Amino acid sequence: MATINDYAPDFELLREMLEEKQLINLKKEISDMNEVDIAVFMEELDSDKALIVFRLLNKDLASEVFACLSSDTQEHIITSISDTDLHFMIEDLFVDDVVDLLEELPATVVKRILRIATPQTRNLINQFLRYPDDSAGSIMTAEYVALKKTMTVSDAINYIRKTGVDKETIYTCYVTGPQRFLEGIVSLKDLIMSSPDCIIEEIMDTNVIKCVTTEEQEEIIQTFNKYDLLALPVVDHENRIVGIITVDDVFDVMEEETTEDMEKMAAITPSEKPYLKTGVFETFKQRIPWLLILMISAAFTGQILTAYESALASCIILTSFIPMLMNTGGNSGSQSSVTVIRGLSIGEIEFKDIFKVLGKEFLVSILCGIVLALANLLKLILIDRIAIEIAVVVCLTLLITVIAAKIVGCLLPMVAKKIGFDPAVMANPFITTIVDALSLVIFFNIATYILGI
Amino acid sequence: MATINDYAPDFELLREMLEEKQLINLKKEISDMNEVDIAVFMEELDSDKALIVFRLLNKDLASEVFACLSSDTQEHIITSISDTDLHFMIEDLFVDDVVDLLEELPATVVKRILRIATPQTRNLINQFLRYPDDSAGSIMTAEYVALKKTMTVSDAINYIRKTGVDKETIYTCYVTGPQRFLEGIVSLKDLIMSSPDCIIEEIMDTNVIKCVTTEEQEEIIQTFNKYDLLALPVVDHENRIVGIITVDDVFDVMEEETTEDMEKMAAITPSEKPYLKTGVFETFKQRIPWLLILMISAAFTGQILTAYESALASCIILTSFIPMLMNTGGNSGSQSSVTVIRGLSIGEIEFKDIFKVLGKEFLVSILCGIVLALANLLKLILIDRIAIEIAVVVCLTLLITVIAAKIVGCLLPMVAKKIGFDPAVMANPFITTIVDALSLVIFFNIATYILGI
Repeated sequence: MATINDYAPDFELLREMLEEKQLINLKKEISDMNEVDIAVFMEELDSDKALIVFRLLNKDLASEVFACLSSDTQEHIITSISDTDLHFMIEDLFVDDVVDLLEELPATVVKRILRIATPQTRNLINQFLRYPDDSAGSIMTAEYVALKKTMTVSDAINYIRKTGVDKETIYTCYVTGPQRFLEGIVSLKDLIMSSPDCIIEEIMDTNVIKCVTTEEQEEIIQTFNKYDLLALPVVDHENRIVGIITVDDVFDVMEEETTEDMEKMAAITPSEKPYLKTGVFETFKQRIPWLLILMISAAFTGQILTAYESALASCIILTSFIPMLMNTGGNSGSQSSVTVIRGLSIGEIEFKDIFKVLGKEFLVSILCGIVLALANLLKLILIDRIAIEIAVVVCLTLLITVIAAKIVGCLLPMVAKKIGFDPAVMANPFITTIVDALSLVIFFNIATYILGI
Repeated sequence: MATINDYAPDFELLREMLEEKQLINLKKEISDMNEVDIAVFMEELDSDKALIVFRLLNKDLASEVFACLSSDTQEHIITSISDTDLHFMIEDLFVDDVVDLLEELPATVVKRILRIATPQTRNLINQFLRYPDDSAGSIMTAEYVALKKTMTVSDAINYIRKTGVDKETIYTCYVTGPQRFLEGIVSLKDLIMSSPDCIIEEIMDTNVIKCVTTEEQEEIIQTFNKYDLLALPVVDHENRIVGIITVDDVFDVMEEETTEDMEKMAAITPSEKPYLKTGVFETFKQRIPWLLILMISAAFTGQILTAYESALASCIILTSFIPMLMNTGGNSGSQSSVTVIRGLSIGEIEFKDIFKVLGKEFLVSILCGIVLALANLLKLILIDRIAIEIAVVVCLTLLITVIAAKIVGCLLPMVAKKIGFDPAVMANPFITTIVDALSLVIFFNIATYILGI
């Protein structure tokens, strides 16, 4: 059987070559490798060895590998290479990668890069740095193929042949008029399939799916997903093209956004750094604020218990149901909130659906509540042999808590979205704290009423 | 200011045309629209109106629109069109779309489709239906461009021109030998950039990134993301190409997998249906099993309270700290578990990192535990003016609970992954149940020891 992953390089062998200074052999091996694998290999070496490997790469490959490295390694390389090499690399990199890099570097290194770049690149970098985080402008790049509508197909293909090597993609080309006004798009597939004498204007698609520089990442992910795009043009408010976003960048953004959502849903302040590369103190700082806030909120729940202290003292067995009631309430609520948060984030649910969602959650919560209450009733009477009145108190509380929890769980994220907050924050920990308090109030009110304590 | 979203069609206008039976105008409007938008428009109509719109489409566009429709609408269309039209459409659709369709249809309709398809398509469909769910085989399609290494670049481009219209992508072409043995890949960019007389063998990349039919979806997402691919060839165990996976399919899979993970993390049995299209009873069925299991587990936590009933009765104020202790423990644990679950899912953390993760979580938990305990101590003594011994009991419990919760929270998902379970199940609800019990045991042991009750 052939090895399927034969594209995966043998890092052990490469490391041996490096140790034994067989640099010519190493260079040969590496130059056949994928830039991503070279970067992964370099990240496993100490920084001086990584630099030796980097110097073995030819200039074009060096830029490609550089774009895949972590910011620490990038910084080490920049401070170690000559101005000439740095100049070549900055001009060769896509402008979005340069901008990502500058955002991570210390000010002195940023200054050196801006000094070395050509005025044109410098202007572009400065323009890109001004776009707000998480906007279309912040993830686009400037290297796209621009065609004129008067060109023939064979002109266009010749033009792509000449300029395409520096472009982020050549598979979607943008037809622009005066002042970079976006008039249409044409795919390389259209060009290849058309007769060489065709005029671009005849085959271009004028119904262009596009976004503006200020549009939010989440919307862009939805557009890519809805229309199965490979690239999306970014225009300013006068419909002049300023850049493009390619599918691979959207992939990264999508992964980051999901991680962020999950972190928020677990009451963690999001960070862009991978977990294993984040220091203990940084991780601590991501987590402690929410733990503190939630701890203080939960202390208020404790006050409810204090308020009913006498009722509790006269019927201490009630205490033993508290964990079950709070937990079940919390779980019911978080099922609803997570479903709604995810629906909102992928655009499956919108604010206008609020009554549909409420209605559905209400019905589901009644079904869930009844089943849980009945199951519990059977257990309490048949197994635990508990007084029937107490069993009724517990089961009634359970039913009402589950209904309340699911209503709160679906409402809060939708309201948050409406008033401009991030719905993801309204997930489990937050909902649980509210539902805990709710369940205790319901519990003691029902208990006081039925048991007369 | 130009409207930026001018590509978005005016559904209101289209609906009017349909009502007033201006079908010629409607046909003209629709034929300029994107297939995705046509499908969205059709989904908003009742099924007979949707059929009228569908019949206005020319055959090629009809297949494209069909692939974007929901399975209910697809079924309605299939049962309403003639065998001839159905035959054309089945042959025109990509095989992965046909297979997705067949999996949703009733047996009689499936039989009709298989009867109408050509023997070649039927064999392909049967082969594709056999691949396990969530495997590479189940998401690939068969329509790729296959070139021979002896072709020249200009032969290859001519070949693509002739056959490319039916392919899922022409931007990556696959060089195959006898028996579809995968020998290399060449991108359309390489073809365009090379001289027309070049031989494919000279420019193809033999270091092909690929996967086997049985590989899991999650791995494939990671490969796409790591190497920024537009398409990935799928080979059998003899390295013969059987299909390709394109980036737009991976996008869908990625979104589905994330939704599934989030659902599992919120104790919901995943479903592939959108929330608003799922019936109340179905949603109930997705949620009730976990609620029941977790409720029963939480009842055991209650038993712990019963066991310490006399201790509690002698010091009833202890009860009021239970919600805070359980909540803070749960939140601390779920922060760790969600971080680890996400890290495992995107390949940032592997099982071999277990000691690194444990060490880090231990240190973070000590920091968090100390800060929370101190904050609580201050509040209890200065604001609540509670006896110092009780404050010490509570704060010591808090510290130990946070440490235990974070250790459990990071360990469980990693162990689950190792023994082949889905780590996502080890999220908040599950962790909370365990940590609740832990925190109570810790609490009462410390209380008994320090307070002597």
